[in-house]
Amino acid sequence: MITFWFEFASTYSYIAAERLRRLGETPPRTVWRPFLLGPIFKAQGYDTSPFNLLEAKGAYMWRDVERLAEAEGLGFGRPDPFPQNGLLAARVATAHEAAPWLVDFVCGVYRAEFAEARDISTPEVIGAALSGLGVDAADALGRAQDPAVKARLRAATVEAEARGVFGAPCFTIGDELFWGQDRLDDALRWRDR
Amino acid sequence: MITFWFEFASTYSYIAAERLRRLGETPPRTVWRPFLLGPIFKAQGYDTSPFNLLEAKGAYMWRDVERLAEAEGLGFGRPDPFPQNGLLAARVATAHEAAPWLVDFVCGVYRAEFAEARDISTPEVIGAALSGLGVDAADALGRAQDPAVKARLRAATVEAEARGVFGAPCFTIGDELFWGQDRLDDALRWRDR
Repeated sequence: MITFWFEFASTYSYIAAERLRRLGETPPRTVWRPFLLGPIFKAQGYDTSPFNLLEAKGAYMWRDVERLAEAEGLGFGRPDPFPQNGLLAARVATAHEAAPWLVDFVCGVYRAEFAEARDISTPEVIGAALSGLGVDAADALGRAQDPAVKARLRAATVEAEARGVFGAPCFTIGDELFWGQDRLDDALRWRDR
Repeated sequence: MITFWFEFASTYSYIAAERLRRLGETPPRTVWRPFLLGPIFKAQGYDTSPFNLLEAKGAYMWRDVERLAEAEGLGFGRPDPFPQNGLLAARVATAHEAAPWLVDFVCGVYRAEFAEARDISTPEVIGAALSGLGVDAADALGRAQDPAVKARLRAATVEAEARGVFGAPCFTIGDELFWGQDRLDDALRWRDR
């Protein structure tokens, strides 16, 4: 079974989430697990995204994601600031990991962020993503603030790091780790071999 | 037309070179261009490979390359030290960029390094790779020390950096850049569309 580890601030996680959804690699077949890259980057000595720290790598990434979005028929817009603060979205996804609308919510937040270039840090934008799915936004946002939810998200981040995750997205199958949306096919082949 | 930018110390360039050769993506159809990653890493503030600086990333890379080599039916061995000094190999490849044995030489050096875990920094190992192809090793090594060859390799590195190359391997088609062996198929599709 594949676990898809994603961070809401991650451009390549946007592409991976949309590809997984189209392939039907969604719960319960495939586990969608939000985590926070910030603490992992911090442990590596980064105080922001490596794409901001390394100019050539950042310039490449933006062009590459634009190209990938076009190839996948997805919208593309560059949010400001980058990286966005994905904490609220990650808490909502964690609180509602078993909800039938989880995948639509995740992909909706990514589209708001990387197709419409909107700021996803606010309850307004996340609430609108929920309402658009017919979900009671106030209730869903409220449950995201439960201390148990916050603890679960922290635990997911600790588990990701323990599994060797150092960027996003990642795919794990047992002890095997695949890093990057461009390794999705390899991860599927590994599972299906 | 695709240009394949490779660095002899790069594990993923090994996989890419073998894949390109099997696909017939060799000169003159595809340009094989050695360059040096060291000066580019230095400009990014790295004094060694990021795989050595970031433990999780390094651990992932070694397992990933082992897995890729197995999937491609290639040998795998981990040379010590890593990264290897690929300067001599890069000068030989630069001096003999038009030789009919260029691709066999490049892949032979990579196999010595990453299948047999040998040290590729010495004239003995590089000379053996040449002799094994029926090439006059003393002559080929001698021509690699020509000041014009050294200048051409420096120019290749400057051009790589100007094109936005920040790691290896990379593929360029006009102004488009694709980074990583895992983007080879995307680069081919871009060329052929």
